[in-house]
Amino acid sequence: MEIIEIAKSLLKFKNNYIVKGIDDDGAVLRINNSYLILTTDMMVEETHIPSILAPEDIGFRIATANISDVVAMGAKPIAFLISLGLNKADKNFVKRFYLGLNEASLFYSCPIVGGDTVKSNSLILSGFCLGLTDKPIYREGKVGDKIYVTGDLGRVFCSLYIYYNFKDKLKDFMESYPNIFNKLKKPIARIDMIKYKDKFTGCCDISDGLAKELFYFKNFNIYSEKILKLVPKDVLDFCEEFKLNPLDVALNSGEEFELIITSKYKINKAKEIGEIIEKGRFLDGKEFNIKGGYVHKFY
Amino acid sequence: MEIIEIAKSLLKFKNNYIVKGIDDDGAVLRINNSYLILTTDMMVEETHIPSILAPEDIGFRIATANISDVVAMGAKPIAFLISLGLNKADKNFVKRFYLGLNEASLFYSCPIVGGDTVKSNSLILSGFCLGLTDKPIYREGKVGDKIYVTGDLGRVFCSLYIYYNFKDKLKDFMESYPNIFNKLKKPIARIDMIKYKDKFTGCCDISDGLAKELFYFKNFNIYSEKILKLVPKDVLDFCEEFKLNPLDVALNSGEEFELIITSKYKINKAKEIGEIIEKGRFLDGKEFNIKGGYVHKFY
Repeated sequence: MEIIEIAKSLLKFKNNYIVKGIDDDGAVLRINNSYLILTTDMMVEETHIPSILAPEDIGFRIATANISDVVAMGAKPIAFLISLGLNKADKNFVKRFYLGLNEASLFYSCPIVGGDTVKSNSLILSGFCLGLTDKPIYREGKVGDKIYVTGDLGRVFCSLYIYYNFKDKLKDFMESYPNIFNKLKKPIARIDMIKYKDKFTGCCDISDGLAKELFYFKNFNIYSEKILKLVPKDVLDFCEEFKLNPLDVALNSGEEFELIITSKYKINKAKEIGEIIEKGRFLDGKEFNIKGGYVHKFY
Repeated sequence: MEIIEIAKSLLKFKNNYIVKGIDDDGAVLRINNSYLILTTDMMVEETHIPSILAPEDIGFRIATANISDVVAMGAKPIAFLISLGLNKADKNFVKRFYLGLNEASLFYSCPIVGGDTVKSNSLILSGFCLGLTDKPIYREGKVGDKIYVTGDLGRVFCSLYIYYNFKDKLKDFMESYPNIFNKLKKPIARIDMIKYKDKFTGCCDISDGLAKELFYFKNFNIYSEKILKLVPKDVLDFCEEFKLNPLDVALNSGEEFELIITSKYKINKAKEIGEIIEKGRFLDGKEFNIKGGYVHKFY
């Protein structure tokens, strides 16, 4: 049993504010006529923080990871809290970290309102974000809806491929594929998409790769030709150099923070990759099974 | 410069929802006519979790630490999120942890609505609590207000004294001083006090010891005779056995989760220890200086 299943089976207490508990990108509470979105995301040095991230990048990234979940629920982030575990009082690191966090605070128009600081053996970041919306969006779609994906996919996969396999040549590759490493170093939550949210029937962000996230939408047809349109030129070049399949790369690239959106309308700044159907999961008409090897876990 | 000061100097962005940012037990946001309290509290194995705590105790405790901050601001906790860093998938630990958390959820009538789980080298707990109130209470008092403290003080100090100095005799002492160790193992946030909050002019919880927390109230007279009334019989016995000064113990016992309350009214279930004055800090008429040695940090 997964940890989340243990939690769901043991934690049953509800109150009248809860619209949705443990089950989506974030929890949803209703207070009067406002919906509050609550999300949290933790990063630890040993598991989540590639050493090529500068302190500023780490600060920006923890905000992005949390704010992305709020955005994926159709909400505006209105407050952020950050708890830090630090192994030494490295004030230079702390200052640069907060500078990155401040940049994110300005970029996303989301104030940092509090946090906690503790002594720990290695770096720990725990963010919490509060969002506000008049209409929460869930990980679901209606039969007949088109499925859209924002931005591009694959760069994070490629950068981690180098990071884990060719650490000694990292500098060279960072020079030859700058945009690939930029997306690892500074991913952006798609806060620009909130203004279209009234068109969304469903939404989630891509943390664990398109393939895995699509399963939240239960029944769908997707098309490789359409997915490949999300793969930018540098990723295609990279795939050729390293003999990787660009479709696999696009399906398995995690921490992209792009959005999967379902809608019956055309969605600006997003590309259609398929549709929600009655029953079954198909890629190019063939059964699409997560156990078929589409999901890697990088972190 | 303390980390919190670095954060305050660098993180300046505000929006119209923020009533109070980084500066109190929690942040305060106003949405329509409701005030939301946002608090977060992190605990890591190496710094915060004495090995005598059972997994159930740890689960209850992380909820208590967060909910106590919400209560100290005069709010009812309405949702809790918990992020976990685990060094191995020890499902027995996880189940028992969630059982303790569930007990807290029922005890405080506060639902657990989400969280995150990551792989880490040692146990990390990061809690976040959302509270709701029509009147937030801050760490302040009005001149002439009496200062009250709930419950009792000193037991946590004594239990940690044994834990750090006589680990080999821990079992014996746990038998001779059961209530002392019970308060370390299962402290309770004073949610029972919220019903009196309309009488409060100020409030904060005792995380770092009475002496340190009192400094948030700036100017005060306190009296040792009155403070000693907060010290239970077993702590007095313990102090005699170990030649400790019970006043020092009461002033420096942290993680008690009792409340310091200021009010011009009598407060039920709390004992008066002094009053807010115009200028200065005095214990029994003598200057009371935090640098005089009253603050120890146990964690």
